[in-house]
Amino acid sequence: MKTLYFKDLDQHFGKVVVLDGFVDNVRDLQYVQFVVLRDTTGRVQVTIEKNEENASLNEIVSNLTLESTVKVKGTLQQNEKVKLNQMEVIPSEIIVTSLSLDELPINYKDSSSASIDTRLNYRFLDLRSQKNLLMFKVQTCLVHAMREFVMNQGFLEIHTPKLIGAASESGAEVFELKYFDRLAYLAQSPQFYKQMAIASGFDKVFEVAPVFRAENSNSYRHATEFTSFDVEFSYIDSFEDVMDFEENLLIAGISKVKEEYGEEIKEIFGVDIIVPKKPFPRIKLEELYQELEKTANFSMNVEDVGDMNSESEKLASEYIKKKYGHEFVFITDYSAKKRAFYHMRKDGIPQGYDLIWKGCEITTGAQREHRYEVLKQQALEKGLGEDIKFYLEFFKYGCPPHGGFAIGVDRITMLLLETGSIKETMFIFRGPNRIEP
Amino acid sequence: MKTLYFKDLDQHFGKVVVLDGFVDNVRDLQYVQFVVLRDTTGRVQVTIEKNEENASLNEIVSNLTLESTVKVKGTLQQNEKVKLNQMEVIPSEIIVTSLSLDELPINYKDSSSASIDTRLNYRFLDLRSQKNLLMFKVQTCLVHAMREFVMNQGFLEIHTPKLIGAASESGAEVFELKYFDRLAYLAQSPQFYKQMAIASGFDKVFEVAPVFRAENSNSYRHATEFTSFDVEFSYIDSFEDVMDFEENLLIAGISKVKEEYGEEIKEIFGVDIIVPKKPFPRIKLEELYQELEKTANFSMNVEDVGDMNSESEKLASEYIKKKYGHEFVFITDYSAKKRAFYHMRKDGIPQGYDLIWKGCEITTGAQREHRYEVLKQQALEKGLGEDIKFYLEFFKYGCPPHGGFAIGVDRITMLLLETGSIKETMFIFRGPNRIEP
Repeated sequence: MKTLYFKDLDQHFGKVVVLDGFVDNVRDLQYVQFVVLRDTTGRVQVTIEKNEENASLNEIVSNLTLESTVKVKGTLQQNEKVKLNQMEVIPSEIIVTSLSLDELPINYKDSSSASIDTRLNYRFLDLRSQKNLLMFKVQTCLVHAMREFVMNQGFLEIHTPKLIGAASESGAEVFELKYFDRLAYLAQSPQFYKQMAIASGFDKVFEVAPVFRAENSNSYRHATEFTSFDVEFSYIDSFEDVMDFEENLLIAGISKVKEEYGEEIKEIFGVDIIVPKKPFPRIKLEELYQELEKTANFSMNVEDVGDMNSESEKLASEYIKKKYGHEFVFITDYSAKKRAFYHMRKDGIPQGYDLIWKGCEITTGAQREHRYEVLKQQALEKGLGEDIKFYLEFFKYGCPPHGGFAIGVDRITMLLLETGSIKETMFIFRGPNRIEP
Repeated sequence: MKTLYFKDLDQHFGKVVVLDGFVDNVRDLQYVQFVVLRDTTGRVQVTIEKNEENASLNEIVSNLTLESTVKVKGTLQQNEKVKLNQMEVIPSEIIVTSLSLDELPINYKDSSSASIDTRLNYRFLDLRSQKNLLMFKVQTCLVHAMREFVMNQGFLEIHTPKLIGAASESGAEVFELKYFDRLAYLAQSPQFYKQMAIASGFDKVFEVAPVFRAENSNSYRHATEFTSFDVEFSYIDSFEDVMDFEENLLIAGISKVKEEYGEEIKEIFGVDIIVPKKPFPRIKLEELYQELEKTANFSMNVEDVGDMNSESEKLASEYIKKKYGHEFVFITDYSAKKRAFYHMRKDGIPQGYDLIWKGCEITTGAQREHRYEVLKQQALEKGLGEDIKFYLEFFKYGCPPHGGFAIGVDRITMLLLETGSIKETMFIFRGPNRIEP
């Protein structure tokens, strides 16, 4: 395994080093050859004089194609004349560990040189850009910090089934598949199963896993498969507890990203990472609409009242940003008609929220209805019956009051780095028209 | 949220405490009522004298059903007469936060009182047992320690697509589904995509995610959906590097489990957690068979030579245990006919291994073939063509030498705790005849 990374080379001046990396650039001049190597942490120049002694090295470099990988053994020297970090490696050995066979079909170093669809066709090359590499470092850091946060509070990790026997939750369409001699479906969310864990006395659970949505939607923020960071916990007093928890979780994640990658993000994405302050602004939907009507001349269609849409989400963020200087806003008191049956209601009002960040919904959270009879009634009202019978069973034999939420990992990465589209942010995007590579 | 856990109660003698938990037991005697509460960390007794002052509390307890959940406010007292930890809570308030409506359909406290299938039908109750709760604490701890291990070495986390456009890998059967106006498949493993990350220059990657196998197999260790801990990393010299890495990863995970839960596991599962010593024994397949023939009078069918089966895995572990006192064994030098086309070969021998633990295969690992032309040839030999064309592309434009492996999370939990069946170990088991709850 590679043990020496280029960012750490300045610890090794005057020593023999072994470098593994991609060939980022080659200049084959009359008297000298320069090869720039790249790894995940930086770049370094390898300098080979053209002379008899170096004949075999010179030949290797002459035949070296860009983006090949090499192993180079040589002496690391400080050299103020070298633009790249004032250092160079004088090699004694170069091994081509893989040879790039063709010219690259896209120029991944310039994302504007190809359409997003062409880039996605060659995602394995597109991901070689400094920007995309940083994006996945950031996402790894963000998710890990969030996971650390829940682990430190004693959450259990669960792995809920994605193959399910009934197309249970209403709303988004589900994918159907043949499962031996019957049909099965792909889970749109782990909702029912994380609640099952609560009924099982697991107290506090989380899961980071794929969810599947058979929605024929081609917006900047939808995908047919994405990664969901799901949390559910017991013994809450109200959905205020859920919002509090989500604030702390996001602050933990974003703080860590800022600490580790804030400067690089600023340099490469041009984005200032702002760690949000507690409490995040909270506003009732009706009040929000009154404000938006006053301040932005915005009005909802009557049939949409009780819910948000992408336009009101955008305006809500603008309004909150202006009024409170905050990037986040919790919107509460949606209409029961527009919310899932399992949200607890108080005086008919769902005890839940959406969280909007930079004009885009990133979470739906709620206190759940844990009382069997009430839950059954609310399900019936939504026309749900046989398909969720197995789920209602979970609440018959004692189940603590509880709540939780889900955060779309790809979506918050998109918003954090302001990439403008989830296609840019997913390792490999999946949409109605894209299931390859 | 619940902040006080029962294991920490001994810090609060003489104080007013608020307890949240399940009703584990009720004894309603002539002059006194005892309620035992349970949370994820322990149990505690609540004592209510029957008298006029307590009339309303007495009535609540009289109507309290087992497995309901309550919130109790009261004073915590030391009392040597109380068997359960010599403490009791004298309540001033009891709120029933959920009422168990029925007698439980299974006695989850005695797993032998119902068949595994009945228990799985009521998995949400079955999971309430002390044993199952501990199992998921252990699994959470194990996976987290393994994740910490790779994170500390700078691995990137990837989330590869589970919906794929081609039923690519041969071997296990795949689930097929309708994907808008075409067909799609569920990924049997992230193999192709973690290798894509390597070709993208991601250097070292991991993923913990579900994989799907449409195999009609009903063994103790197969499931149609399970969680896979996948690892892949660049710049290796041979598959020895992969085995070394896996040793360290497993040692990190198992050490942490032993440290945190070793005693509890011994008490509740009767299992000694043994942290394996490095290096794990390694043996070539042919040599193993010679030894098994000598020591166990075992011989393989000619058509099976070059591979292992469940019997030889069991015997291999017994042989290694006897000879080296080790629970693990790497078996190498399988036949190329029995290994995937993407394993690198040297003199025709696949540069990979299986890892066997306690008689059961838990990993296949290998150095991968990263040279386009060789890989293409090996694919052709296995009859693979159009379906893997997209995958072969990954290797055309430079790709470092690399290797990796996958560990089935549910399977190693089963082996760690010696539960005897993966049905016991999965949060919710999925098999050919089971897709519910």
